[in-house]
Amino acid sequence: MEREAAALENVCRGIALRARQAAQELALMPAERKNRWLLAVAEALEREQASLLEANAQDVATAPAKGLTAAAIDRLKLTPARLRAAAEGLRQVAALPDPVGEIRGGERRPNGLEVLKVGVPLGVIFFIYESRPNVTIDAAGLCVKSGNAVILRGGSEAFHSNTALTRLLRAELIQAGLPEDAVQSVPTPERAAVGWFLRWSDCVDLVIPRGGKSLIERVVAEARMPVLKHYDGNCHVYVDAAADLEMAERIVVNAKCQRPGVCNAAESLLVHAAVADAFLPRIGLLLQQRGVELRGCAETRRRLPQIRPATEEDYRTEYLDLILAVKVVDSLEQAIVHINTYGSRHTDAIITRDLAAARLFVQRVDAAAVMVNASTRFHDGFEMGLGAEIGISTDKFHARGPCGLRELTTYKYVVIGQGHVRE
Amino acid sequence: MEREAAALENVCRGIALRARQAAQELALMPAERKNRWLLAVAEALEREQASLLEANAQDVATAPAKGLTAAAIDRLKLTPARLRAAAEGLRQVAALPDPVGEIRGGERRPNGLEVLKVGVPLGVIFFIYESRPNVTIDAAGLCVKSGNAVILRGGSEAFHSNTALTRLLRAELIQAGLPEDAVQSVPTPERAAVGWFLRWSDCVDLVIPRGGKSLIERVVAEARMPVLKHYDGNCHVYVDAAADLEMAERIVVNAKCQRPGVCNAAESLLVHAAVADAFLPRIGLLLQQRGVELRGCAETRRRLPQIRPATEEDYRTEYLDLILAVKVVDSLEQAIVHINTYGSRHTDAIITRDLAAARLFVQRVDAAAVMVNASTRFHDGFEMGLGAEIGISTDKFHARGPCGLRELTTYKYVVIGQGHVRE
Repeated sequence: MEREAAALENVCRGIALRARQAAQELALMPAERKNRWLLAVAEALEREQASLLEANAQDVATAPAKGLTAAAIDRLKLTPARLRAAAEGLRQVAALPDPVGEIRGGERRPNGLEVLKVGVPLGVIFFIYESRPNVTIDAAGLCVKSGNAVILRGGSEAFHSNTALTRLLRAELIQAGLPEDAVQSVPTPERAAVGWFLRWSDCVDLVIPRGGKSLIERVVAEARMPVLKHYDGNCHVYVDAAADLEMAERIVVNAKCQRPGVCNAAESLLVHAAVADAFLPRIGLLLQQRGVELRGCAETRRRLPQIRPATEEDYRTEYLDLILAVKVVDSLEQAIVHINTYGSRHTDAIITRDLAAARLFVQRVDAAAVMVNASTRFHDGFEMGLGAEIGISTDKFHARGPCGLRELTTYKYVVIGQGHVRE
Repeated sequence: MEREAAALENVCRGIALRARQAAQELALMPAERKNRWLLAVAEALEREQASLLEANAQDVATAPAKGLTAAAIDRLKLTPARLRAAAEGLRQVAALPDPVGEIRGGERRPNGLEVLKVGVPLGVIFFIYESRPNVTIDAAGLCVKSGNAVILRGGSEAFHSNTALTRLLRAELIQAGLPEDAVQSVPTPERAAVGWFLRWSDCVDLVIPRGGKSLIERVVAEARMPVLKHYDGNCHVYVDAAADLEMAERIVVNAKCQRPGVCNAAESLLVHAAVADAFLPRIGLLLQQRGVELRGCAETRRRLPQIRPATEEDYRTEYLDLILAVKVVDSLEQAIVHINTYGSRHTDAIITRDLAAARLFVQRVDAAAVMVNASTRFHDGFEMGLGAEIGISTDKFHARGPCGLRELTTYKYVVIGQGHVRE
């Protein structure tokens, strides 16, 4: 048993070392070759659809026995439409500029020394994710385009799907003249394997865990390398005393209902007392018509007596569902303090016509994205002009908000002299 | 005993919470007020010189009993000149642009949504350092100017000096109308206290350990928040086949001898075989005249028979002393592989007249700064145009190379619409 674990650890160590080597080669590859690979994979996904769906069917067949919910099984399922969407995503990534080699700054110093700041890959990314096999495609595409080798650790429930996809991705790497080991997957569902990679900071430059809070907490505790992560998306919409109430209605309905299961959907509504009488009955009706359950403070329930009271816990909760916590606040100040206390620093919006209020909210709310008169749903790499994203960071370090190609890179300084020495 | 530890932990927790609160206030303060504080502290350092030197004398008096070496005692010592230099440093920081509020990008999206990327402080920085009390001044100056609250943890050997300096820094914060708790220090030399702060990721956004490898390793293992760190500076100078050998002499001598005890001094010299006969005897003589001990490979010792052989360990060592490891390489390729194998990704230089060689070296050497025809000693925030620095990061994540004011900040996205909702 112990000998088996040691053998398995050796296999994983080999993967880590080959990833480090592949990353060194990939870092030098021109954008053209990486784009050729992206387009070839897009084509292969459609060409080899039958065998990919077959592998996926094996996973789906064993999913109920593994205790997956109907929703989880739906996420696990590949369909021709989902494969087409993934292929389309890769074509979009191919069209984005290469962040590697990008000149991010520079100057000629007074002594004639030339200093350039140049984009370079991070190196090796360990990507941990759950269920959805199309994430395998998205993540590999973004990592390789940004010049990074990736080690994929999908959920055991998607093992056959991910194995088939990894095989396809690697075959096309060879075809494109790129290092095959730029994309590898962990060949065992063994939980201990995650721990090994988290220790190998000599080979892994960044870990991105995408999944539940307990997974992320385990990774943060064990990782000896940086972690790029997304905790909660407990997003707020604050309707100011000076709000255009019709605009506020549209935005609140959009932020809550357009796609309630995603991280940038609104979870709490704050309403200034001065407009509570006018706004709460209208928005209550609109939301209830859309099946949203409201939970409110005493002042909210004075205007909407039929809803249930909100607890302290409600204000902290990311429902990811058709539920909304509602609170009446006496001032902009109180709204800001509430958001900075209960929010998760993801996305918060103010609806107002008052420039001073908008400015204060933008300055003082501590979130990756602060919206003025726009739905929280716009906090998204594509909507914000970064192109495809590997996730939204709720961290402040390295990257905040949407993480696209540039956020998967770092930089080096190149300093050019003509024999310069320091006095 | 246990009750005492619990009481102490409570005191430290209070510091962390007050730092979080102070950071929120400081984030909103205009540059003008932060600059006024910097200039006032510079003045106070000179005005209160006598009492500062007196506090420092207490530390210096007890240092030998604590087993400090003569070099460590020298670093511990404050002098009028060192205080003047620290004051001058603060005046330079005051003159630098404020990274907070800086617009780092932005665009109007096709749908009219305006997206801005705005510089904001990281929040609370936990700064751990050893011996030199003037670091207290530099670190506090950079943190406050970049809008961050700082918790200082100096070495116990500098306790009285740091206490006096912290008192001065805080008194001037009040005078300038800034939150006093923007600068605090850990009031106990207890080692456990460091562990508490490393766990409190709700209050501390970044830890910067400045010290020996064992300190940094402990911090990386325990911290639940990002770490900005500097491991070794094992820097190389590679003299290419196409080098201007006179330039190479000047640069090698400068990189090794100008200040051998700092991180960007050269520790290894690589010489292309084609110029080994011409170069090694000349540089050998020049370095030996300056008291440098050389350790070489067999090919080096064929040209410099009197020097001792270099071991594998020598090529991995950051001497921080007048010692230089020397190796003859057969090709540029071999030089690059050697650097990427034994180097510490800090600073590496090539001396060449060959453009293709320079380009390949710059692309393939994985270091925070790669120099062409310039001394490694130029890898420095001030020399490279970033202004003062809090350190040089050998990490790739968030900041690489010199960390100045901007590297102590992050950004938020501000998204402005006119009622935008997502379809």
